[in-house]
Amino acid sequence: MATPVYSGAARSPQRGRPRDASRDDALRQAALEVMAEVGYRALTMDAVAARARAGKATIYRRWESKLDLVIDTCTQLAQQNLAEPDTGSLAGDLREFLSAFAAFLSGPIGKAAQALVGELPHEPELASAFRGTFLTAQRDVLRRILDRASERGELREDAPRGMAVEIAGAALIYRLMLTGDPLDLPFVDRVVDQVLLPLVAKGQ
Amino acid sequence: MATPVYSGAARSPQRGRPRDASRDDALRQAALEVMAEVGYRALTMDAVAARARAGKATIYRRWESKLDLVIDTCTQLAQQNLAEPDTGSLAGDLREFLSAFAAFLSGPIGKAAQALVGELPHEPELASAFRGTFLTAQRDVLRRILDRASERGELREDAPRGMAVEIAGAALIYRLMLTGDPLDLPFVDRVVDQVLLPLVAKGQ
Repeated sequence: MATPVYSGAARSPQRGRPRDASRDDALRQAALEVMAEVGYRALTMDAVAARARAGKATIYRRWESKLDLVIDTCTQLAQQNLAEPDTGSLAGDLREFLSAFAAFLSGPIGKAAQALVGELPHEPELASAFRGTFLTAQRDVLRRILDRASERGELREDAPRGMAVEIAGAALIYRLMLTGDPLDLPFVDRVVDQVLLPLVAKGQ
Repeated sequence: MATPVYSGAARSPQRGRPRDASRDDALRQAALEVMAEVGYRALTMDAVAARARAGKATIYRRWESKLDLVIDTCTQLAQQNLAEPDTGSLAGDLREFLSAFAAFLSGPIGKAAQALVGELPHEPELASAFRGTFLTAQRDVLRRILDRASERGELREDAPRGMAVEIAGAALIYRLMLTGDPLDLPFVDRVVDQVLLPLVAKGQ
């Protein structure tokens, strides 16, 4: 389970009517779709409300601003989709996690994330929240995968764990956002076998 | 020298008045600054003209459209800034090229590239041109660095050259666009020493 890293996005039940989780999910899904289509800057609460066939007031009861809505959406999606594998081996854990992450990025969240990334230089609050949720969630899972491998004695003493975590994320994001080459299983296998295991595992 | 990969962007001299290279450079610089500030979608020829204190007609005599102007700007910048090192060793070449590329990305071109990347899913022509210029230019330099290392006998037989080229670009772009961590010399050294040399060099 990914650690929740951002808790200020949605209003607490005390401050509004009781939360309806499935309604919130539908609104987040609408936000994701609108963001994937038009980007963060052009996203409006009106467009999200129209997509979800909801009133704008319904959205504002739950999220104070567009920034809150977008960050809460990223956080929830990361928590729901970046589950931590435990296959018993470093190779198995890396393969399982990176395949799931690649599939996750290949869907609408990938397009939405790409639209967000283009805005980060102009939106410091968004940048800080995006890094604190989306990036931190996947980095934390990878760190724990390496920690468990270390406990099992699978890592070299001098394994550059931070670099391995960074390169794993970089390899997937670069394909998604820059080259457009497929984020498929053969690619994940190559990243694991040619890059990550040689970087950190014993006897490579 | 990077191979020119896109030649259709600027009008040929035959079709307009004789080209003034320094004027063109000033217009490209203005385009780069506007793009870094507002992104590709919000960039207008009017804004570029105003920034360069030029008439809009001057711009249209040289570039047919905003897409032409932006692509030509990226191409020229890549050719001017991605020089091919030849230090005589793989480690030296990688360090020199990636330091120069990191410095290049840390300037306005980095912000402009980030703004472009957010638009790629919605702008297929832009995506294809961006990949054919900016991405291809740096990939070609890295490939030739590896080819020369291979001729000198520095590479392992089974070295995954394509993966090394991809990871080098990915590592820098990920910092620039996602994490915001510094693209400095210590980072370049770690990428070269911990990741790239172990991936392809003999005796690692």
